[in-house]
Amino acid sequence: MKSAVLIAIGDELLSGVRQEKNGSFMAWHLHDKGWEVKTIEVISDEEDEIINALARWTGKVDLLIFSGGLGPTHDDKTRYAFAEFLDCDLAPNNELYDKVLERVKDDPRRYEYTENCRNPQAYIPVKASAVFNPVGFALGIKFEMNGTKVLALPGVPMEYQAMTMQELPEIFSHDENNCWASVIILGLPEVDIVKKIPEVINNKDLHVSILPASPQVELIIRGAPELVAEAEKFTREKFVDVTPKGCKSLAEALLMEARMKDVKISCAESCTGGLVGASLTEIAGSSDVFNGSAVTYSNEAKHKILGVKNETLANFGAVSEECACEMASGARKIYDADFAVSITGIAGPDGGSKLKPVGTVWFGLADKKSSGAFMKKLPGNRDEVRIRAVRFALAELWRSIHNGKILS
Amino acid sequence: MKSAVLIAIGDELLSGVRQEKNGSFMAWHLHDKGWEVKTIEVISDEEDEIINALARWTGKVDLLIFSGGLGPTHDDKTRYAFAEFLDCDLAPNNELYDKVLERVKDDPRRYEYTENCRNPQAYIPVKASAVFNPVGFALGIKFEMNGTKVLALPGVPMEYQAMTMQELPEIFSHDENNCWASVIILGLPEVDIVKKIPEVINNKDLHVSILPASPQVELIIRGAPELVAEAEKFTREKFVDVTPKGCKSLAEALLMEARMKDVKISCAESCTGGLVGASLTEIAGSSDVFNGSAVTYSNEAKHKILGVKNETLANFGAVSEECACEMASGARKIYDADFAVSITGIAGPDGGSKLKPVGTVWFGLADKKSSGAFMKKLPGNRDEVRIRAVRFALAELWRSIHNGKILS
Repeated sequence: MKSAVLIAIGDELLSGVRQEKNGSFMAWHLHDKGWEVKTIEVISDEEDEIINALARWTGKVDLLIFSGGLGPTHDDKTRYAFAEFLDCDLAPNNELYDKVLERVKDDPRRYEYTENCRNPQAYIPVKASAVFNPVGFALGIKFEMNGTKVLALPGVPMEYQAMTMQELPEIFSHDENNCWASVIILGLPEVDIVKKIPEVINNKDLHVSILPASPQVELIIRGAPELVAEAEKFTREKFVDVTPKGCKSLAEALLMEARMKDVKISCAESCTGGLVGASLTEIAGSSDVFNGSAVTYSNEAKHKILGVKNETLANFGAVSEECACEMASGARKIYDADFAVSITGIAGPDGGSKLKPVGTVWFGLADKKSSGAFMKKLPGNRDEVRIRAVRFALAELWRSIHNGKILS
Repeated sequence: MKSAVLIAIGDELLSGVRQEKNGSFMAWHLHDKGWEVKTIEVISDEEDEIINALARWTGKVDLLIFSGGLGPTHDDKTRYAFAEFLDCDLAPNNELYDKVLERVKDDPRRYEYTENCRNPQAYIPVKASAVFNPVGFALGIKFEMNGTKVLALPGVPMEYQAMTMQELPEIFSHDENNCWASVIILGLPEVDIVKKIPEVINNKDLHVSILPASPQVELIIRGAPELVAEAEKFTREKFVDVTPKGCKSLAEALLMEARMKDVKISCAESCTGGLVGASLTEIAGSSDVFNGSAVTYSNEAKHKILGVKNETLANFGAVSEECACEMASGARKIYDADFAVSITGIAGPDGGSKLKPVGTVWFGLADKKSSGAFMKKLPGNRDEVRIRAVRFALAELWRSIHNGKILS
């Protein structure tokens, strides 16, 4: 099994100002091809730390990728650390940098700026090679030592992604022989799931990760391709509410189900503020079944846009079974959809009461014939309540379309 | 300066299936109190790896926090690794676990499940102490050795957060003497910003991180509190389009500006699918100025809900200046807002053409008197285009409210 270590450089990551994302992107793709990622590390942008990491891992793994610290400002020190580690000077790779400049030749302001950044953005340790940047401006660095391929790439995710794809095409090639499978099961706690498939869980040739995220539990099964395929099939047959093979998320499963049944969907969101719509439209091609979402934060908007009755709002409040039903019906009608889901709740930290504490969320479902609602008391802070609410809404809308009727 | 190392345990993190979040949460708070976070590491859930990390960092830093691997399933090995490292047995802390059970006493199904998980969730190495879990069920572990405080906490972010707050109240206490400041500047490239404040950038007693995220650049200035305060004031005075002190994001600045000017805002989203609404409603209390967002993905919805003319859609298409203007005007009207912003673009990967390639995004702005629009060609994949579009929309809406009129 080939092994890799992924290292992100940047004080903004160590101070929690930004979240590291390149590591998990790359880990996902390496993993997909059966590689072992030994560790993902975040280190500071001090030269010594970068040199230490180079010394620590070169010769120990097949692939070592650094991200960050290649920009034009004073806190970008990766190239100097690499030169120091390789005990050599830096020299510009003008040929590749001219190709980068070409991209902004029609924009005098950006051209001048990019030209001014030639030093340091084109500078590469003379014992290493330059990596072309197909979307940004800073060149990357690569060299091999003691069996380890070492890459330094910019930290901007778009550039990191484009340059890893360019340098490691074998990792990104399409391949049917997956070393892993994901199965998403709805509505059962993890222990009940584990009990139903001891053959998979206890199989020493498989590695099963269990990832609960109520109301779903995701199983990641890893091992030799044929064993994984068999275990996935076995697992899928043991459960009723399981999303289709190949779906990486609930949102994807929902869109796939709607497409299969040829129905259009829409939603109405209050406390989630657009997160359901955002999670559906994250997926390319969602427009063929998702018509839209009405984010109605105020009572006036709920009335005016979705047609929630003023009496409903006055008598039961916005966070109520009645309002959730009317929101779902309204969203179904105004978007000409077949099924709609609505969310209205108290995400906190304020707005809670004894009767309706923070975390109280009503979900409405509507099809062409009827509407209905259910309530959940969701734990956690504002973010958690919102994220959980999105999952419950997607899960119940999926189930409704799957069964051909709401809340069955 | 006190130092910390944060370690996340879990194969799902190393395989990119889940993204590590506890590290950056804790790093942010430690950093806020002037601590140095030496590294954030993700390691696999093998016992040996956990023991190695304990050996590597105990005695070297003041605080060492592990997250993950304390649940009830077979891949949860943190407690066994801790017992092995401490060379002792595990024993249940029934007193604390009974307190945890108390929380589900009214729910027989969950009670039984939680009781069945007493072994292993209550088991703690006898040479260490148990950490109460105020929101979840698995107990944490803590001990001190050679000057290092070691904690093992569950990986579920809600539990991790609650338990760090409980165990390290000094890190979360409110404190006016900040060791850092954030300044968000709009509409200037990073090099132009750096040139304007050499006194801050070149001050050896300060550490300045520069975080570009077009159209904004965020500066994080760190150092002794009085120096940071002075540098922040100096920097703010050098720029015109700078968000107010204390704002952690563009969305926060926008809400603050709207509140200050007593105006209501709304939006209409096509390719961003609800992300603008989601980013505004992420902030508690947003409902007092944000009325809502109409996610109109289909042309029919743009016409029916926002009142975009069918001729406009037929003659210019949905991704056009005209449609963006009508969407913004429509969103302003239906939500009874003072200012509205709209987004309509091609996020890709499909849908692009020679005239309107992927990344083409039109932004509309409307106030009570007029509407206008501008276009950006945004680089990157679908996610990148959407995230950049949200920033441009928030920035321009902020600027409109700040100046009292659109597109000034």
